[in-house]
Amino acid sequence: MKIVIVGASGTMGQYLANVLERENHEVVRASRSSEEIQVDTTSTKSIEEMFAKIGPFDALITTAGETFVGPWKNLNDQTFKKGIEGKMMGQINLVLIGQQYINPKGSFTLITGALTHEPQINFANASAANGAVESFVKAAAIELPNGIRINAVSPAVIENSPHYFPYFPGEIPTTMKQLEFGFKKSLFGAVTGHIIKP
Amino acid sequence: MKIVIVGASGTMGQYLANVLERENHEVVRASRSSEEIQVDTTSTKSIEEMFAKIGPFDALITTAGETFVGPWKNLNDQTFKKGIEGKMMGQINLVLIGQQYINPKGSFTLITGALTHEPQINFANASAANGAVESFVKAAAIELPNGIRINAVSPAVIENSPHYFPYFPGEIPTTMKQLEFGFKKSLFGAVTGHIIKP
Repeated sequence: MKIVIVGASGTMGQYLANVLERENHEVVRASRSSEEIQVDTTSTKSIEEMFAKIGPFDALITTAGETFVGPWKNLNDQTFKKGIEGKMMGQINLVLIGQQYINPKGSFTLITGALTHEPQINFANASAANGAVESFVKAAAIELPNGIRINAVSPAVIENSPHYFPYFPGEIPTTMKQLEFGFKKSLFGAVTGHIIKP
Repeated sequence: MKIVIVGASGTMGQYLANVLERENHEVVRASRSSEEIQVDTTSTKSIEEMFAKIGPFDALITTAGETFVGPWKNLNDQTFKKGIEGKMMGQINLVLIGQQYINPKGSFTLITGALTHEPQINFANASAANGAVESFVKAAAIELPNGIRINAVSPAVIENSPHYFPYFPGEIPTTMKQLEFGFKKSLFGAVTGHIIKP
């Protein structure tokens, strides 16, 4: 299977890329700093160029997308844009543009997170971006043609990112193995419109 | 109670304004076409001006915010902005700016809708906006100071908007009375961070 991973240089993307490559999939590693395929998901032009370079593919995974993290008093129309352009529209545009390039019966798997339903102080922008992506996934699932599927994986704080633990009191970290299985359920299963909590 | 209703000229806003006025609340009717208080919620400047005019208040209800409704093939980064600037950031900015003007123990009540979880063809932009607002409400509830509460009311298709029925097959319409009770639960109850399904 030809699998595009956007965010391939991050903690999750790197892990998933390595796992899927070991299992003999053709993995295309895309990220802002990638030497293979460079992409800035906040730019539709950059996304277009990425897909034009990659050509047809079977699945796209995204683990990318920034949000504003910081004190509530600093949250305003301007700082909110970070999550809208990053985690929200970055991922949504990968689908809206990528649908022109993906093979029939292909799949998109986006990333959200527990913050959709379990807020934490400093992360309201991420909560909103996650909520938007999750509801978009449910809506896109009934619109995408040619048997193309779409799901989101919604992990808790990630085992391999311990620097985040203090900001997520009481949250049981999602292990890398759980994360991998979450993405595999979307990639190799048959569901669409699901929010997979690994 | 001094209650600001943004979207007061719409089907829901007008109904709620009349009900609350009959029950002797001081209702401030704001909308894009209002003669009382004109506001364009896609502009932070217009929101700022509205609050400066109104002064301190006890509760804000919003039933306003446009989204892109139309064929999936017309959904792209540009058309998506309608829901981001309208139903999503329009409402979020009412809170982020309005928190400077609202009285202690005041409340914000936003509007979402069944599309968050029950998508319908043509409404992916609204689904995403709803999802963003609902997760924002949960996050804002743990951030807002001075006992200020925030909730969302999430109705199905509205009884008094029968022209929408064909687009919402199988959806049992929310009656105006149910809608009223949903908003009253937020206005006069004690919950915060709740998505109220009336």
